[in-house]
Amino acid sequence: MNDFAEMNSTNKNMEERIEVCHLESDYNNGAHEAVLRHLIETNNERSQSYGDDRFSERARQLIGQACEAPEAQVWFLAGGTQTNATIIDCVLQPYEGVLCPETAHINVHESGAVEFTGHKVIALPSHDGKLDVGELRSWLSAFFADETAEHMVRPGMVYITFPTELGTLYTAAELTALHDVCQKYGLKLYVDGARLAYGLAASPDVTLPLLSRLADIFYIGGTKCGALCGEAVVFPRGDAPSHMLSRIKRHGALLAKSRVVGVQFDALFQPAGDVALNQPAVIVPLYLTLGRQAVSLAMRLRCLFVERLGYQPFIDSPTNQQFYIVPNADLDRLRRYIGLEVWCPVDASHTACRFVTSWATTEDEIAALEARLRTDLIGL
Amino acid sequence: MNDFAEMNSTNKNMEERIEVCHLESDYNNGAHEAVLRHLIETNNERSQSYGDDRFSERARQLIGQACEAPEAQVWFLAGGTQTNATIIDCVLQPYEGVLCPETAHINVHESGAVEFTGHKVIALPSHDGKLDVGELRSWLSAFFADETAEHMVRPGMVYITFPTELGTLYTAAELTALHDVCQKYGLKLYVDGARLAYGLAASPDVTLPLLSRLADIFYIGGTKCGALCGEAVVFPRGDAPSHMLSRIKRHGALLAKSRVVGVQFDALFQPAGDVALNQPAVIVPLYLTLGRQAVSLAMRLRCLFVERLGYQPFIDSPTNQQFYIVPNADLDRLRRYIGLEVWCPVDASHTACRFVTSWATTEDEIAALEARLRTDLIGL
Amino acid sequence: MNDFAEMNSTNKNMEERIEVCHLESDYNNGAHEAVLRHLIETNNERSQSYGDDRFSERARQLIGQACEAPEAQVWFLAGGTQTNATIIDCVLQPYEGVLCPETAHINVHESGAVEFTGHKVIALPSHDGKLDVGELRSWLSAFFADETAEHMVRPGMVYITFPTELGTLYTAAELTALHDVCQKYGLKLYVDGARLAYGLAASPDVTLPLLSRLADIFYIGGTKCGALCGEAVVFPRGDAPSHMLSRIKRHGALLAKSRVVGVQFDALFQPAGDVALNQPAVIVPLYLTLGRQAVSLAMRLRCLFVERLGYQPFIDSPTNQQFYIVPNADLDRLRRYIGLEVWCPVDASHTACRFVTSWATTEDEIAALEARLRTDLIGL
Amino acid sequence: MNDFAEMNSTNKNMEERIEVCHLESDYNNGAHEAVLRHLIETNNERSQSYGDDRFSERARQLIGQACEAPEAQVWFLAGGTQTNATIIDCVLQPYEGVLCPETAHINVHESGAVEFTGHKVIALPSHDGKLDVGELRSWLSAFFADETAEHMVRPGMVYITFPTELGTLYTAAELTALHDVCQKYGLKLYVDGARLAYGLAASPDVTLPLLSRLADIFYIGGTKCGALCGEAVVFPRGDAPSHMLSRIKRHGALLAKSRVVGVQFDALFQPAGDVALNQPAVIVPLYLTLGRQAVSLAMRLRCLFVERLGYQPFIDSPTNQQFYIVPNADLDRLRRYIGLEVWCPVDASHTACRFVTSWATTEDEIAALEARLRTDLIGL
Repeated sequence: MNDFAEMNSTNKNMEERIEVCHLESDYNNGAHEAVLRHLIETNNERSQSYGDDRFSERARQLIGQACEAPEAQVWFLAGGTQTNATIIDCVLQPYEGVLCPETAHINVHESGAVEFTGHKVIALPSHDGKLDVGELRSWLSAFFADETAEHMVRPGMVYITFPTELGTLYTAAELTALHDVCQKYGLKLYVDGARLAYGLAASPDVTLPLLSRLADIFYIGGTKCGALCGEAVVFPRGDAPSHMLSRIKRHGALLAKSRVVGVQFDALFQPAGDVALNQPAVIVPLYLTLGRQAVSLAMRLRCLFVERLGYQPFIDSPTNQQFYIVPNADLDRLRRYIGLEVWCPVDASHTACRFVTSWATTEDEIAALEARLRTDLIGL
Repeated sequence: MNDFAEMNSTNKNMEERIEVCHLESDYNNGAHEAVLRHLIETNNERSQSYGDDRFSERARQLIGQACEAPEAQVWFLAGGTQTNATIIDCVLQPYEGVLCPETAHINVHESGAVEFTGHKVIALPSHDGKLDVGELRSWLSAFFADETAEHMVRPGMVYITFPTELGTLYTAAELTALHDVCQKYGLKLYVDGARLAYGLAASPDVTLPLLSRLADIFYIGGTKCGALCGEAVVFPRGDAPSHMLSRIKRHGALLAKSRVVGVQFDALFQPAGDVALNQPAVIVPLYLTLGRQAVSLAMRLRCLFVERLGYQPFIDSPTNQQFYIVPNADLDRLRRYIGLEVWCPVDASHTACRFVTSWATTEDEIAALEARLRTDLIGL
Repeated sequence: MNDFAEMNSTNKNMEERIEVCHLESDYNNGAHEAVLRHLIETNNERSQSYGDDRFSERARQLIGQACEAPEAQVWFLAGGTQTNATIIDCVLQPYEGVLCPETAHINVHESGAVEFTGHKVIALPSHDGKLDVGELRSWLSAFFADETAEHMVRPGMVYITFPTELGTLYTAAELTALHDVCQKYGLKLYVDGARLAYGLAASPDVTLPLLSRLADIFYIGGTKCGALCGEAVVFPRGDAPSHMLSRIKRHGALLAKSRVVGVQFDALFQPAGDVALNQPAVIVPLYLTLGRQAVSLAMRLRCLFVERLGYQPFIDSPTNQQFYIVPNADLDRLRRYIGLEVWCPVDASHTACRFVTSWATTEDEIAALEARLRTDLIGL
Repeated sequence: MNDFAEMNSTNKNMEERIEVCHLESDYNNGAHEAVLRHLIETNNERSQSYGDDRFSERARQLIGQACEAPEAQVWFLAGGTQTNATIIDCVLQPYEGVLCPETAHINVHESGAVEFTGHKVIALPSHDGKLDVGELRSWLSAFFADETAEHMVRPGMVYITFPTELGTLYTAAELTALHDVCQKYGLKLYVDGARLAYGLAASPDVTLPLLSRLADIFYIGGTKCGALCGEAVVFPRGDAPSHMLSRIKRHGALLAKSRVVGVQFDALFQPAGDVALNQPAVIVPLYLTLGRQAVSLAMRLRCLFVERLGYQPFIDSPTNQQFYIVPNADLDRLRRYIGLEVWCPVDASHTACRFVTSWATTEDEIAALEARLRTDLIGL
């Protein structure tokens, strides 16, 4: 029975043999050590189920505190697409649809899970993954002035991702403007935080408490941010629809052994002492710490790609997803060292590629990558 | 960083303080040690996602071997209701419904998740949780003879649970008869194996290979049988509908970090040396071993309740769910020692109660319970 | 308006050639003369659409008056299954289901249209087509006492048919009791009146105003009661959900040229002078008159079958659907004279058959049938 | 048939009193005289139901002949949105969506009826209401090259309207190109012919037989083209999915008294002697004749607006829907004489308006309108 220390050393050896730095996604990993440890610590305890377990309850309280939202209601679901489809369907009236930028995950990469629940996804133009609040306002103004509106799908919600699928961020001012437009037209503002840890780490002004004041619903992504699986849906004002347990179960999204996700969020929202970066002496939840580390390493990647390799950013992302325009001539060599995702062709001789750090990316990995690339591509 | 040994001792102390033997369900626990250990061992490895990870792949092979079904297709989902709703909807034609006994989980306790996907659940009489093959045959014969059949929901599938919600089991002969009726009328036979480990352990003649020959689809329950979460859906003949990934994702049931369930089933289907009971020198997967232990303890419970306490069985269950008729006068005292579920009133002075063992129930727990009850209720 | 006269004479000739009296259903016909005439009269007028036409508006007012329900909201849909599925889905919360007797049309003969909208149809025992209020009360009492109720489909509505699929009727007292139970448990009472004209005609104490006080929603069937097509859904207290136009259109149930049904109900709810039977000098809508005529002829059929032919009723129906036990030896001869529907075998030598009169059945047809049967079967 | 004559004279008097020429839509009317007459003629005949009536059968044969598609399967539904949602859902696999131009009726004005059935509507750019085949080809090529395609909604169908919502038409060459692209990528081509009569009348080269060769499914609109209600769905190659009756009923779209629509299409597809325009001595179905008359009057309107009033077309439509840019100064005066639909503002002093002729528009109406406008607006 290995302990964690042994395990880590074993893995470190393996890592050395495997030269590739895996930046293809932020869900190519297991769970953060603290999450695993908490699963072990609590393993022999017996508990209630279907959300009534004490671990979920404690996680809910920690999340409420981190959000400064004492009224918050929190549900734990297993994955992101499930969360989006379930929550959107639970919150919308049957005749309502959800507005989003056309690059939104629900519009592109969820195999129609929202439409499966009977709701239209109404796509507006995307600006590097973001909705423009002016365009949204104009669209809504035109919709509600249209005499045929009752024959159209009524907008009931604005869906955004923070950070977006392209790694970009809304500012606090932009979120406030979106919130105001939603209020004016009676729409819910829903924020998909699949990568919330990385967004909060990179944002100069968006925090969990701010998000809790501006969003009607948001989810705190676990799967991509340190957990084995699981997402925490937050209704910060405690105004979720009635009978949420039935609603969630009807979508197949209620975990019998709910502690599985509860324990993980209990770990992720514990105060973290070993915070990264030069930061104030504030104790923040581990969740935020994990985001900071990944963003810090993403900035080091940016430095490597832009300053050392002279690549142009494809999108200017401040978060853990980085996009660069790679000369096709470099692509094969790059792949020898990096697990990456080809994003799209740019021109005949360049390709946009995505490089993703995560809570699991280590300083050693990035340092080794820098060393290898220096030798091979940069030729020094 | 505790290792497992420490952890276990800590928990053992705690267990001693807590006198209650938790028999209220088989999902009031964490995961089997081997499952947790495998999560730890594999934690630092990077992997593909959405089912393409090597852990899921290995688990699929182990399951195929255990089922003696080399053509089998296996998908890993997060929970039981999700699995039922997703698979039933994927397999049925839109105009088809699913037949089941009226006590079936899909008919009673899934908040309408199957109907949410647009399909009717057609309930036939339940005989201690089981479908009677003769009644099924008569029903189908009448349906297909009915001139108005096109105005009715066409039966496309028979759903049964093994073991049933009441702990009972179909014999191999009964499963064969169900299979034959399904074949005759062109229906799929789908077996919900949420507690399959316990059913296989208790059955004299039903095995994974037999199930693979008789069922068109079945799922191997993980959540209640040693895993933190997850179920393995098996199409033993490899004839799943096309585009299953899209279909599953559309139901919100595709895990991005699919290894979470894959690693667990990889552990559960490893050959187990430390098999319980006096059994032949066959190496069986851990999954089956876990079932045997729980059933063995359930039989010890039966002995305690029937022979020592003189309770009548409410249902004659050979599996890990036990149902007894408890005198109301005993109920409060019993609850001091046992976490149980009140099932239903029987008469003015008796109540049927459910007692559930699981892979997590220990011999020590049951021994301690026997000792306590001997002292208190039996008065010796 | 003499082409009708011509037309009738032409058809009378044809009828004489065709010896068969068509009693196989109450939708084997066209429309009542007054309905056709009103379609002709209004044909060249231009009108609004989607329910805003003046014909629909006038029909709404007439229906409101006949129901003594000045607050009533009325929608016109094209057919019965569409109406049931649309209204049930519009009124229920997503997590709710609809209770009904197991013989209910929505449970048996709508190809799963209600489940298609995502709602469970929860079948209770049927007593000659009717729900027993005591059984309903017990079921509801047990449901709301069940600790697992949130995992079950919550009952949100009681659906009954008036008259039932078996031609039977609830008394005013029974409807009142159903209403009271629904009120107590917060359920809607919805009455499917596909054959309402015949039910009202046969009932000693149920009237449109009474129905409007006791039901939350009901529909006045047109298709089987004198119209070419169309049903009028009534919310007698004007408390329909918001955005009904969008909701109905989303179900594909909004007619662009809404006047088609509106004109027909405008005709059907005109005061009728030529009322059948010996009745008080009250002017009733044509709709009720049509029902009375069909029921009167059904009673003449009953006399023929029971007193002359000595057949036993299969179900004791006071309405336009009559069910008799026919000796198999008579069946072929009977079919020479009557279009009937074989209902089900009764024993080796008897078959239950359904005979349906409608607004389109004439006294002459029944008289001719009596004459023929007298000659052939009765042998006088 | 003199009541029609009477009726017409009555109405003519009324028309003289009402000065307004009603061009606000093509469903502001009743039914063509021949349709009403056939409803009267057949009214007293008894018939089968649910599509098995002899009128529907005869209409199916006439449509098959007009389409030169002897294998064609034809279903009659009540309205357009219902038809689109039902047929799209019946034909698509669950994981498939439907491609269309963003102005398509299913994307804009059906209250989300297609999404209600669980399918995504995937909007491509609209060019005056039309899909560009080059853009479609590029989109499909990119989709099927995308490595994440399984996570996206797979395109299963191309939906177009003929004529489009903006009155425009695809040429035979464009339809052929669309057909070829669909074939290449395994998509169905579905043509919404809500206004098909007007499209066929205005097209130089698209005919029912051509449409039957190029489209996999199309519907022949009745509601806007001479019927009281009803649309005829054609699968020209007889390859509709199995169990269509159940599928249609499940959508609430099966008419019990199916003859209602069958009789109307039986009338509309009778050979018409009194064909409009200078055309060859070919006997065409009444349906096509009705379209020609409306288009002819629309061209007369165009002449009036463009040549007399000097208005610019907003869209260059050859069909019964005409769109002109009206100076705001003229708008009120215009409305005194014409029922029109304001389409959208063009600039500060101009508004685009829609003027729709139909089978019900008469030469007299247009002549009177010309006279009035000449006096008032043109000032001569």
